[in-house]
Amino acid sequence: MTVSQIDEEVAKLLELKVQLGGDESRHQFTLKTAKGTRDYNPKQMAIREKVFNTIISCFKRHGAENIDTPVFELKETLTGKYGEDSKYDLTPASWSGNSLFLDPTPSQVPFARYLAMNKVTNIKRYHIAKVYRRDNPAMTRGRYREFYQCDFDIAGQYDPMIPDAECLKIVHEILSELELGDFRIKVNDRRILDGMFAVCGVPDDKFRTICSTVDKLDKMSWEDVRSEMVKEKGLSEEAADQIGQYVSLQGGMDLAERLLQDAKMSQSKQACAGLTDMKQLFSYLQLFQVTDKVVFDLSLARGLDYYTGVIYEAILTQTGPVPVAAAQNGAGEKAEEGVSVGSVAGGGRYDGLVGMFDPKGRKVPCVGVSIGIERVFSIMEQKAEASAEKVRTTETQVMVASAQKNLLEERLRLTAELWNAGIKAEVMYKKNPKLLSQLQHCEDSGIPLVAILGEQELKDGVVKLRTVHSREEIDVSRAKLVEEIKRRTLDV
Amino acid sequence: MTVSQIDEEVAKLLELKVQLGGDESRHQFTLKTAKGTRDYNPKQMAIREKVFNTIISCFKRHGAENIDTPVFELKETLTGKYGEDSKYDLTPASWSGNSLFLDPTPSQVPFARYLAMNKVTNIKRYHIAKVYRRDNPAMTRGRYREFYQCDFDIAGQYDPMIPDAECLKIVHEILSELELGDFRIKVNDRRILDGMFAVCGVPDDKFRTICSTVDKLDKMSWEDVRSEMVKEKGLSEEAADQIGQYVSLQGGMDLAERLLQDAKMSQSKQACAGLTDMKQLFSYLQLFQVTDKVVFDLSLARGLDYYTGVIYEAILTQTGPVPVAAAQNGAGEKAEEGVSVGSVAGGGRYDGLVGMFDPKGRKVPCVGVSIGIERVFSIMEQKAEASAEKVRTTETQVMVASAQKNLLEERLRLTAELWNAGIKAEVMYKKNPKLLSQLQHCEDSGIPLVAILGEQELKDGVVKLRTVHSREEIDVSRAKLVEEIKRRTLDV
Repeated sequence: MTVSQIDEEVAKLLELKVQLGGDESRHQFTLKTAKGTRDYNPKQMAIREKVFNTIISCFKRHGAENIDTPVFELKETLTGKYGEDSKYDLTPASWSGNSLFLDPTPSQVPFARYLAMNKVTNIKRYHIAKVYRRDNPAMTRGRYREFYQCDFDIAGQYDPMIPDAECLKIVHEILSELELGDFRIKVNDRRILDGMFAVCGVPDDKFRTICSTVDKLDKMSWEDVRSEMVKEKGLSEEAADQIGQYVSLQGGMDLAERLLQDAKMSQSKQACAGLTDMKQLFSYLQLFQVTDKVVFDLSLARGLDYYTGVIYEAILTQTGPVPVAAAQNGAGEKAEEGVSVGSVAGGGRYDGLVGMFDPKGRKVPCVGVSIGIERVFSIMEQKAEASAEKVRTTETQVMVASAQKNLLEERLRLTAELWNAGIKAEVMYKKNPKLLSQLQHCEDSGIPLVAILGEQELKDGVVKLRTVHSREEIDVSRAKLVEEIKRRTLDV
Repeated sequence: MTVSQIDEEVAKLLELKVQLGGDESRHQFTLKTAKGTRDYNPKQMAIREKVFNTIISCFKRHGAENIDTPVFELKETLTGKYGEDSKYDLTPASWSGNSLFLDPTPSQVPFARYLAMNKVTNIKRYHIAKVYRRDNPAMTRGRYREFYQCDFDIAGQYDPMIPDAECLKIVHEILSELELGDFRIKVNDRRILDGMFAVCGVPDDKFRTICSTVDKLDKMSWEDVRSEMVKEKGLSEEAADQIGQYVSLQGGMDLAERLLQDAKMSQSKQACAGLTDMKQLFSYLQLFQVTDKVVFDLSLARGLDYYTGVIYEAILTQTGPVPVAAAQNGAGEKAEEGVSVGSVAGGGRYDGLVGMFDPKGRKVPCVGVSIGIERVFSIMEQKAEASAEKVRTTETQVMVASAQKNLLEERLRLTAELWNAGIKAEVMYKKNPKLLSQLQHCEDSGIPLVAILGEQELKDGVVKLRTVHSREEIDVSRAKLVEEIKRRTLDV
């Protein structure tokens, strides 16, 4: 043995020792992801990508720009807006010297901070990003610590209700294109709600708490809501009954007109302003041809404090299989994006938020919508599982294969030619794979075409192009191969 | 005053009070993003999107699937692989009961954990995600606490060097398509390095430390590297000089052949195995037509311990303006993705990592590449700034405009028609915008077409379609408008 050979042996033994050491520690734990998180496999990612593409295409069709804000915001940025509750603080313990929140911030807050900080007075933007939540995950109910938020917002001083109508048009387009089943978009206005509470005799300091009880009408009967108002919140029975009359109302432009004539409601300037805008909104929604799905619903009362005008929420109405996340969401619990049971999108107008961040208090009126994208994912996943159709996880158009031995180099050469021509192509990483296993891979992963090379084909300057589903084979000249593959896979 | 009017007034005053309270706190801080983070504006996002699209298209062309793993991994998953250094712990203080790391994990670790946990034995996948780093940010040098990682990996037991060659082909394609300037891809092999150290007389326990000194050859002269080896690391002068002869070598397949005949090098089985594979690799690279950029370079010695075979690193070689991030990266400091100065991609083979996670120690050979996507972003941003060409931040094809008053409804109706036909269209949110301001918006944001409506056009059933850059206008019938817009904006 030479010295270097000894060295090598020693190195090998040392490596082995490390491996054995690794073995010992290996058995002490079960492999898993961190609490509240999960992996996404290729099939899930393919579904996600489809959802993202549909949504982003819609945003782009409406001329939206894309911005990105950090997942963290300084604690002082949020102080006063959400209280100083340290339970929301997700700052890593090791990031001393910094005080920052890591969610669950409504995404409008970083957006408003961005506008104020960069003195942006008008923008139409979307933002899709992973965010994190502190509270205990409940994965069986679809509550994760790591999840996506998806937002679209229009900021700027414009004539009333035009951007608001576009937000509703966008929700209509996205939900139609995603084919999630039938849906309804409920619309109301913060000013109509506040005016209604005022004329029904709700004391000012009870507006918010009564509002949050009204918000439960989609999960609780009126009797239970009335009982909570009266017994828990101390509202007079008379006021509760008056509210009960209003919140049962649903309609369209006609309802807004009727309420403008209503003896009580018309006493509130706020309500009248809201109702006049509601009429205007519906006139735009008619032009956008989306009134088939939009309902003016006086029981809609979204929780977030910063809404100042129109509010809306889209719910799926089909009675088919409800996703676990939605079905098991108990009463009183809100899903992450601020949307309730069955809800897949929500939003509204928030004209005061940017002013709270601007050093001079300059206001930038905003209206926006959040798509409950995690819920959409789980509905789409369930649909895919229920369907016979296979989800493709790659976009490969052609597999370069061979029936004969010793053709690896020819396969690699052709594959590179195809890649260089922009064709999505795969080749097996084996010197001599069996034709059957190459074809099986195409069946398994949905690759529609196989380009088969053999000695004869190489001699003739052709490739045998096989259509996987029909098993039909034709000879195509090398010069025309790219064109032929493109022609046959236009939809891939 | 009625009671409800009084209530309204009180509500207004209370609101005012809240606002004034907000004013007080407003002046106590300057708006900023959290330390080590930044916002991305629409222009930056447009550049990012272009980079992502180029890279993802390439991955898809090669048949890659997409997976997503959480940004967190359990601490015990990492223990033993990276030491128990708590300085890497980014666990939020409020997430008690969980011990998990939040980066700076090389992305191969979550991938290997995913494979072992899900018993995946072969996959070709990519993963692009935001990750977080604990250490102090240095934003002027492009070191942020929040940044993107972009990885491509091929896992599975295959014939030697075929997937390895595909990784290099992918780097070649991506760097060519991104047009970042000329580049070179250095290739070496862990076994060649270890064999070289052995035959040069480096003691086994000094392999790693000598390797990390060699790794500095791209930023330090040979004299300085030699001096560090001898004076700091205690290597004999003779061994250092022998290393010096090898690490100055660069070539291709010929160099691998020459070293296989080398009296010393051929004594190491490890080196011979590496050199034989290197020859094989270059034969595949020739088929892929990428040998113009690939250099077998014995000085390449990437730091990460888990590489077991081929290693590579792509560097930009142009002498033009170097991005700040690269230029100011001091010697001895590594950029985030494990790539050194001027480096924009790197990777290698790591056959042992999955086995460390698998309960039964089953190995899954892997080879992969990380694209230094943050560096690519900053180069592209600088190129965009230096260029006269404007970066578009939307994809809007047409602006629906009017020269006359009172045509808002007609504008909205036409806009909705276009949206429904899949046309990317914008309309101003004003009742009576000036034509000039509508045209100005098109100039500013690069919208190529304007569809102008007027009383006459409405009567005639046409739209005046204006090409913004040429100011040419033609009348197009409403029925043919969608088709005409599509024809004129094929490239948008």
